[in-house]
Amino acid sequence: MLKFYYSKGSSALAAHILLLEVAADFAAIEVPIGQGSHQQADFLARNPKGRIPVLETPDGVITENPAILEYIAATHPASATLPNGIFAQSEARSLCAYLCATVHVAFAHLKRAPRWADTIAAQDDMRQVAPRNLAACAAYLDQCLRLGPWAMGSSYTYCDPYLFLIGHWLAAADVSLAPYERLVAHRDAMLARPATQAAMAAHDLD
Amino acid sequence: MLKFYYSKGSSALAAHILLLEVAADFAAIEVPIGQGSHQQADFLARNPKGRIPVLETPDGVITENPAILEYIAATHPASATLPNGIFAQSEARSLCAYLCATVHVAFAHLKRAPRWADTIAAQDDMRQVAPRNLAACAAYLDQCLRLGPWAMGSSYTYCDPYLFLIGHWLAAADVSLAPYERLVAHRDAMLARPATQAAMAAHDLD
Ligand SMILES: N[C@@H](CCC(=O)N[C@@H](CS)C(=O)NCC(=O)O)C(=O)O
Ligand SMILES: N[C@@H](CCC(=O)N[C@@H](CS)C(=O)NCC(=O)O)C(=O)O
Repeated sequence: MLKFYYSKGSSALAAHILLLEVAADFAAIEVPIGQGSHQQADFLARNPKGRIPVLETPDGVITENPAILEYIAATHPASATLPNGIFAQSEARSLCAYLCATVHVAFAHLKRAPRWADTIAAQDDMRQVAPRNLAACAAYLDQCLRLGPWAMGSSYTYCDPYLFLIGHWLAAADVSLAPYERLVAHRDAMLARPATQAAMAAHDLD
Repeated sequence: MLKFYYSKGSSALAAHILLLEVAADFAAIEVPIGQGSHQQADFLARNPKGRIPVLETPDGVITENPAILEYIAATHPASATLPNGIFAQSEARSLCAYLCATVHVAFAHLKRAPRWADTIAAQDDMRQVAPRNLAACAAYLDQCLRLGPWAMGSSYTYCDPYLFLIGHWLAAADVSLAPYERLVAHRDAMLARPATQAAMAAHDLD
């Protein structure tokens, strides 16, 4: 059985959706970031980086959203959420790397500004610039969806819950999704799926 | 044949090393960031993100270091630079996601501070904080190498050129590698390989 460590409202929502989507055999263990639980010794023993999400597998621990998502897809072939072939898999990895290193990081400058600057003024500056970067990310992602309706084209893959998470965060950060019609359509398609609804409920989101 | 778009001294060094290591059939095309070539229309047509590196394959374009590196490894099985099995592959992806989203990003706060803040004072603050984050990354990576000598243990994989790039950048950013013995040993092992030497020469590094 898999053990999935998550915090409500965190990026763990993506893998949580996927675990439900593929009907994985897993236990969800809450590690509330708001209470600092991700900095306690027992959690740091699992992930010395002190970050969420973490997936404990029979073979060991996996961290980082792109790696966790692809692992879930690859170990549940019946769900067909892994693209077919090396090139399509590379395109999926490219999208997930962008979501992780550029888009998630752009969000972190809103909530985690003290990670990168000490003064309050600098942190405020970063928070002010962040929506500009996020809007640029949204415009790029909207273009990526031109084949749609799913992130990789006609089939739902493990990238979709990750893209959905990002759309959800954009709206929460007051970056209106309205100009990005394909992102809106993607969000609506995701929201229509029971796995998305169940994961949202587990994270107290609506 | 592959076409590899790179800029000297950029993160493209990692994939450049790997392409040489696996003896890929590729053409290296220089796109000097310093001259703004990565923002010109012909390059943006290949990668609308305007970033380096880019790999053009017979099937289409791949962007993002982790995706490019794994593609090269997966399409050159004789080189055995792709770990075996889903779990080991997930561990490799986890490391590369961390290098991409946390370590590369920590460096970008030195060189690309204006991406995330408008005022000079805020950018200076970010540049001052960056070495602290980089030192934390170095300490974590040193621990990751405990099985050594390579990033994934006893065998050289596609992660090694990426880790080498990061070690090279750390030293260049005045974060001494000396306290991180395993990182130093890894760098020395990489520098002993002809592929590393040839890629360094192509990037005018020594
Ligand atoms: N690159 C990592 C980022 C993980 C991450 O930063 N997670 C956030 C929650 S979304 C976290 O744990 N934050 C706690 C902290 O920064 O202390 C991934 O994709 O898994
Ligand atoms: N997440 C991307 C980052 C790529 C990236 O930012 N590359 C830098 C060079 S190391 C670049 O193109 N910078 C130009 C710019 O920011 O304008 C990857 O891993 O490929």
